[in-house]
Amino acid sequence: MTTVGILGGGQLARMLALSGAPLGLRLLVMDTADDACAGQFAPLLVGDYRDEAALAEFAGKVDVATFDFENVPAESARWLADRIPVFPNPGALALTQDRLAEKTLFRELGIPVPDFADVATRADLETAVAHIGTPCILKTRRLGYDGKGQFRIKSPADLDAAWTALGAQASSVGLILEGFVAFQRELSVVAVRGRDGEFRAWPLTENWHVDGVLSASLAPARVDTALQATAMAHAQAIAERLDYVGVFALELFCRDGELLANELAPRVHNSGHWTIEGAETSQFQNHLRAVLGLPLGDTSVRGMACMLNWIGTMPEAAPVLSVAGGHWHDYGKQSRDGRKVGHATLRADGAERLAVRLADVGEALGRQAQVAPVVARLRETPSSE
Amino acid sequence: MTTVGILGGGQLARMLALSGAPLGLRLLVMDTADDACAGQFAPLLVGDYRDEAALAEFAGKVDVATFDFENVPAESARWLADRIPVFPNPGALALTQDRLAEKTLFRELGIPVPDFADVATRADLETAVAHIGTPCILKTRRLGYDGKGQFRIKSPADLDAAWTALGAQASSVGLILEGFVAFQRELSVVAVRGRDGEFRAWPLTENWHVDGVLSASLAPARVDTALQATAMAHAQAIAERLDYVGVFALELFCRDGELLANELAPRVHNSGHWTIEGAETSQFQNHLRAVLGLPLGDTSVRGMACMLNWIGTMPEAAPVLSVAGGHWHDYGKQSRDGRKVGHATLRADGAERLAVRLADVGEALGRQAQVAPVVARLRETPSSE
Repeated sequence: MTTVGILGGGQLARMLALSGAPLGLRLLVMDTADDACAGQFAPLLVGDYRDEAALAEFAGKVDVATFDFENVPAESARWLADRIPVFPNPGALALTQDRLAEKTLFRELGIPVPDFADVATRADLETAVAHIGTPCILKTRRLGYDGKGQFRIKSPADLDAAWTALGAQASSVGLILEGFVAFQRELSVVAVRGRDGEFRAWPLTENWHVDGVLSASLAPARVDTALQATAMAHAQAIAERLDYVGVFALELFCRDGELLANELAPRVHNSGHWTIEGAETSQFQNHLRAVLGLPLGDTSVRGMACMLNWIGTMPEAAPVLSVAGGHWHDYGKQSRDGRKVGHATLRADGAERLAVRLADVGEALGRQAQVAPVVARLRETPSSE
Repeated sequence: MTTVGILGGGQLARMLALSGAPLGLRLLVMDTADDACAGQFAPLLVGDYRDEAALAEFAGKVDVATFDFENVPAESARWLADRIPVFPNPGALALTQDRLAEKTLFRELGIPVPDFADVATRADLETAVAHIGTPCILKTRRLGYDGKGQFRIKSPADLDAAWTALGAQASSVGLILEGFVAFQRELSVVAVRGRDGEFRAWPLTENWHVDGVLSASLAPARVDTALQATAMAHAQAIAERLDYVGVFALELFCRDGELLANELAPRVHNSGHWTIEGAETSQFQNHLRAVLGLPLGDTSVRGMACMLNWIGTMPEAAPVLSVAGGHWHDYGKQSRDGRKVGHATLRADGAERLAVRLADVGEALGRQAQVAPVVARLRETPSSE
């Protein structure tokens, strides 16, 4: 029996375990926390990703390794890849850990991206701001996560403050200046590539963020087929260039009908959680099929689905469980501010029916604001802006 | 966080764990075997169901208990029910452990059953065979399982042999004589009843057995709405009489358009495995919702589904994983003759498409005989015989 090792033991590893179990595999999850929620449904090895003894124990117990967490140090991934198969490959992981390398790759592949510039010195920053214009955002190239390591520059007067906040990191993790994009929609492609190079993608998903954290996803996104095809082509070009194996998400902005690549997540993704009930095969099972070299599953959708993220604390389950097409996902975590503790997926066979169910659930949970933009989108005439 | 205890740690407990995890519950499985396959995805307590110390440890660690195995001694279930909530209730469990009591209940509820008679003595047997006619089957009332404790009487000349085989058990577990039913179809209703009495059922399923073991299931069964309604009414009447909570299966014979009740399985059931991918809510999640007092999920179907059981050894997965709508379930068990080691579910949006997928999979796996009766049924004009 094949054992799949997962670096990182959060909700993504947990859902990988639950979705992969029917393939007859065994799992081993490695995490720095002894209460990592995937450990409730899979054996857990507690250790630091930089500790070679822990990595050696992990490597000795698994046949193939993958990630629930994209900030596993790339050198740890390379150390493992010298010993066992690791998917996605450490080079792909390293690329997504460097905003500059990632955006440079997008540009090389002819994929439109927001303006960006490498910033090594204070003088570089001034030149870049003059060229890109304000508003813009100064970010660390590496290890930025959920809005940390970022400074928004609203006007040239903010340059000093930006350099004070992040300048010291220019010589360690590097800095990048990115133009601000006045987008109308945030979209993502969740896609999978097999060990034999087969590529499949779920339909485009529209996403809504609150305070930088995903709040709701709607799939299929209400866009025209040309936009859909462009997004798929971008995702496939990236996957092939990286010789990527497994599931990944490409986050995109849609501005005036044009798609701009924002970033690549080298793992199963929050904007693909709806695939558990909303698609013939979930992102979780297809990731494991890819990693194991098995045939990829059908990514076609079943009606429409909306995923609602639960941040901090779980709401009451009954209003979601009571609605037809309502599905509940409690990650078994302790409540904590800003923490992703669960999600719900509502499924329906048509847009208006889904809108009604969402509005009902929003009302019952007192979360009207969370569902409102999705309901509004569902009640628009379909268009791609 | 609520902990659900499951007595029995086979594939049913395993699928309960995988399907129940998103509800945020914890599980504890109790089994006599330390390699019970549910133990790969849930904590396992090894112990005998009649060992009070083991039962006490189990009761001390769980908030509510249920079953993956209907032959847990009814007295053990009662012992537990004095300490913690147990669903289904021990009375319902005890009833299904006694063929005579079960058939008597069906008859009391006005549900047609094959002819049967209580057999306490050799003289009873002669009277019963004279009344019911041959062929008929002498069975133990209790603890019969998968064809054990049964003797088929083809003509009155077999009476001596039948009494020699089973007569000694007349005074211990009791005997029942059942008329042989020349049925055209075997059907089952998989249904669920909540703690508040709410009743829901998945559509009728048609089943094919080989050597007394389920080989294939097709859902929805190709029957008319009147037959469907009759079967649902029977299932609901039984559930209400027993104050049943959780999922159960009512197995039925269809003879000349009439439904005859065969037996009741007080648990999630092999003929309901297709609900994982083929229905909005699976039997496994709805069983746990019922046991926990949560709202029941939507039992409506998504297209059509066929489940194929894998007995003894797992076939090659790739032919199933390669087909659109193909889903794989490996229970993580060692191979063994006659053992249920896994199943596949094929799903499609229409009968002919499902027939084509089934025929392709049967061909690829060299299992044409297993799929043939299902393919033939799908290609008939729909009718209820």
